[in-house]
Amino acid sequence: MTRQMTSRLDPLLRPSSIALIGASAKAGKIGNAVLTNLLAGDRTVYLVNPNENEILGRKCYSSVKEVTGVVDLAIIVLPASASVSATRECVAKGVRAVIVSASGFSETGKAGLQLERELLDAIRGSETRILGPNAMGVFVPSISLDTLFIPKDRSRRPCPGTVAMISQSGAVAVSFMEKAAASGLGISACVCVGNKSDIDEMDLMQYFEEDSGTNCMAMYLESFSDGRRFIELSKKMSSSMPIVLVKSGGTPAGARAARSHTGAISASSDPVVNGALRQAGVTRAREEEDLVDLCRAFSVMNYLRGGRICIVASAGGFGVMASDLVESNETAPSLSMAVPSEKTSSALRSVVPDFTSVQNPIDLTAGVTDEMYDEVLAILQTDPGIDAILMSLELQPPNVTRQLIEIAGRRSAGPKPIVASVFAGDQATALTEAASAGLPAFPTIRRCVRALNALVERGMHLSR
Amino acid sequence: MTRQMTSRLDPLLRPSSIALIGASAKAGKIGNAVLTNLLAGDRTVYLVNPNENEILGRKCYSSVKEVTGVVDLAIIVLPASASVSATRECVAKGVRAVIVSASGFSETGKAGLQLERELLDAIRGSETRILGPNAMGVFVPSISLDTLFIPKDRSRRPCPGTVAMISQSGAVAVSFMEKAAASGLGISACVCVGNKSDIDEMDLMQYFEEDSGTNCMAMYLESFSDGRRFIELSKKMSSSMPIVLVKSGGTPAGARAARSHTGAISASSDPVVNGALRQAGVTRAREEEDLVDLCRAFSVMNYLRGGRICIVASAGGFGVMASDLVESNETAPSLSMAVPSEKTSSALRSVVPDFTSVQNPIDLTAGVTDEMYDEVLAILQTDPGIDAILMSLELQPPNVTRQLIEIAGRRSAGPKPIVASVFAGDQATALTEAASAGLPAFPTIRRCVRALNALVERGMHLSR
Repeated sequence: MTRQMTSRLDPLLRPSSIALIGASAKAGKIGNAVLTNLLAGDRTVYLVNPNENEILGRKCYSSVKEVTGVVDLAIIVLPASASVSATRECVAKGVRAVIVSASGFSETGKAGLQLERELLDAIRGSETRILGPNAMGVFVPSISLDTLFIPKDRSRRPCPGTVAMISQSGAVAVSFMEKAAASGLGISACVCVGNKSDIDEMDLMQYFEEDSGTNCMAMYLESFSDGRRFIELSKKMSSSMPIVLVKSGGTPAGARAARSHTGAISASSDPVVNGALRQAGVTRAREEEDLVDLCRAFSVMNYLRGGRICIVASAGGFGVMASDLVESNETAPSLSMAVPSEKTSSALRSVVPDFTSVQNPIDLTAGVTDEMYDEVLAILQTDPGIDAILMSLELQPPNVTRQLIEIAGRRSAGPKPIVASVFAGDQATALTEAASAGLPAFPTIRRCVRALNALVERGMHLSR
Repeated sequence: MTRQMTSRLDPLLRPSSIALIGASAKAGKIGNAVLTNLLAGDRTVYLVNPNENEILGRKCYSSVKEVTGVVDLAIIVLPASASVSATRECVAKGVRAVIVSASGFSETGKAGLQLERELLDAIRGSETRILGPNAMGVFVPSISLDTLFIPKDRSRRPCPGTVAMISQSGAVAVSFMEKAAASGLGISACVCVGNKSDIDEMDLMQYFEEDSGTNCMAMYLESFSDGRRFIELSKKMSSSMPIVLVKSGGTPAGARAARSHTGAISASSDPVVNGALRQAGVTRAREEEDLVDLCRAFSVMNYLRGGRICIVASAGGFGVMASDLVESNETAPSLSMAVPSEKTSSALRSVVPDFTSVQNPIDLTAGVTDEMYDEVLAILQTDPGIDAILMSLELQPPNVTRQLIEIAGRRSAGPKPIVASVFAGDQATALTEAASAGLPAFPTIRRCVRALNALVERGMHLSR
């Protein structure tokens, strides 16, 4: 994150000092997992636990109020009712942001709802803001801020990047981050909002809108805190920044589950939500894998001007499947098969073997070389009838090398962007290499086609 | 493969001796890649190349006719027209099976079609059978038979198992095998049929139907050699063995691409094909990833008796998304949310924390332990209102261990099978461990739900 302005959320997302209330020396305890992750960062961390004098050789305070220095952020890892009194102490101390991780609030019924009201009462009239309750915390890789209660060795974190993630579920956030990390997608921040008693998705959207280090917004929501305002805010934001959203709880069973998960109340039916989101320019993703995919595409190229796709493959079968998908109304309503010009076809003819098809899809066959691919991509860049290239990048043929990834990345900087599906013995490594080369790359054709379609639909939205 | 009967395809799939026609010492040549893969097996391999006296210290024959011993299988890696004359020599030598890898036949137009006719003329009246042309070859892991021209270090092969794969595309077969290998799905064989001039999908289906080591049939086809016979054969076979098929070339662009890839002519429109396949009990997969997924499920449990699904998760967000998907008509038309009995709910209440939801979806929260999960799964096994369990298996919570995979595998052997989505820091390893534990496991909830739906629909087909 590279934010210039100051915000009331800075103490949450850029704290200089943190108090961990409920710190524990015992492995397996949440208060221990958070402690380990916090200490990996390089800022002041105060430990609070009335039953200990010290933990890992560090002084333990019996209350946050005993800390003499400034505390920007307090992380409370206590049971629900104890979290309420700890929050009161944070307010008394002047702590500006509090993360409440405990569950057992509004998501559990009447008594929990009452407890959540008491939590909000605790900050009333103060400058203290609450993330949660029932919230896993925040992760900001560029400043090594990690308040999550999942050990790093159990869940790989992504590198710094330009996608900000807001999630109503800690687990979905973790899965999003693991999938991002595994394929080289970097993030600017990940914030788990839990029950959203105070800080909600809109506060955070506004925060990241002003963050020059964020160029794509990823979200998982089970409910909107204020549907109408969410749509208005999204409409305004989406003109400059792609917003990709997984909205769950759209079926009766899902809505019931959401209520007992985060106390979320899904007010509107799924088709109504869909229509409103589309008008606001929000791209709807299906689950966290899809969310990673679409953010990967948007973080590289923002949008596409048109949907005429030229397919190039060295594997005929993938050319066939890609053609089916590009023409499928279900998967890709906004894509169509480009028709390469005569000039393109004859230029291609001069660089590919005789038995190769130079129609769309272009099938370079297993005899393909790096040089051949480079020339073909250069020729396609000059055809005015092509908006983008779908490349089935296979590293198995004997005469291609890993250089092909770098070649595709370089060619993708031309007027016709390239989205690639990567097939390689070691796919994870190849996908990470593709990400480093600036190439939006995916492990199946279908996922490429979904990404291309989303890019084109965003382009259509922006031109309206 | 553990086939008892003898078949005319044994020389192709269980050869004792192989001649490689077009063997090459030069790295990067197809004739070299195949040579390396062949020599890793432990059977007689004769090298044929009129321009060499020896390759890698092995004698080179100038023609297959010069070989004095019996040759069961010849693999011809020569250009198209030279492949025709080499096939004639194989017939003269009495070779029983020939794999022709070259492209440049019927898929390229008139001249190629003529060449393919000459290829067929070469075997007319003989006992020789042709796989191809334009075929990548065969892989049978249980007997270390690997005739593919893709080096092993570029493309990981799966372990021995019970799924037989027939593919009209070499690349799709390779991608299928890589995805199978990466997640621990074993195969009995993989056969790439290419242009299917002689040996076609039905010959191979009949072969594998009689193979007691095969319990699931995977296929990628761009065309049916004889649609009516395919449907009849499938109807007969599918009562004992699940058949999972990716059929591409269903759109006009896909059909055009298929014609120039394998000369395939897609005769019927996609909806017509869909209806016929459904009636024949064939499960249609979308692409090779989906094919791996469905085969994984079928190879473990063949079918499910009913579609009432109980969801159990330690991550509330996944419980919500799973509920949406199970209720979705699009993703899972044959699944519904099970309603656990009063008895089940009160039994669950006694083993889970107070704030946990014991309705479907059951949310065990991040405080879950291995023991709690084990008890919960045992209780669900006794509920007559549940047909199967969808488990969101998270390894991130501090008090679960990798033992949980083994526990789930053991509980899945009960009357209510378990399909699991696995979320772990190192997902590839966790998926492989799940496969070893006999648990059908996938990296997303959506893929679990698709697999469950396919198992239920097969059950419905079998009961009709």
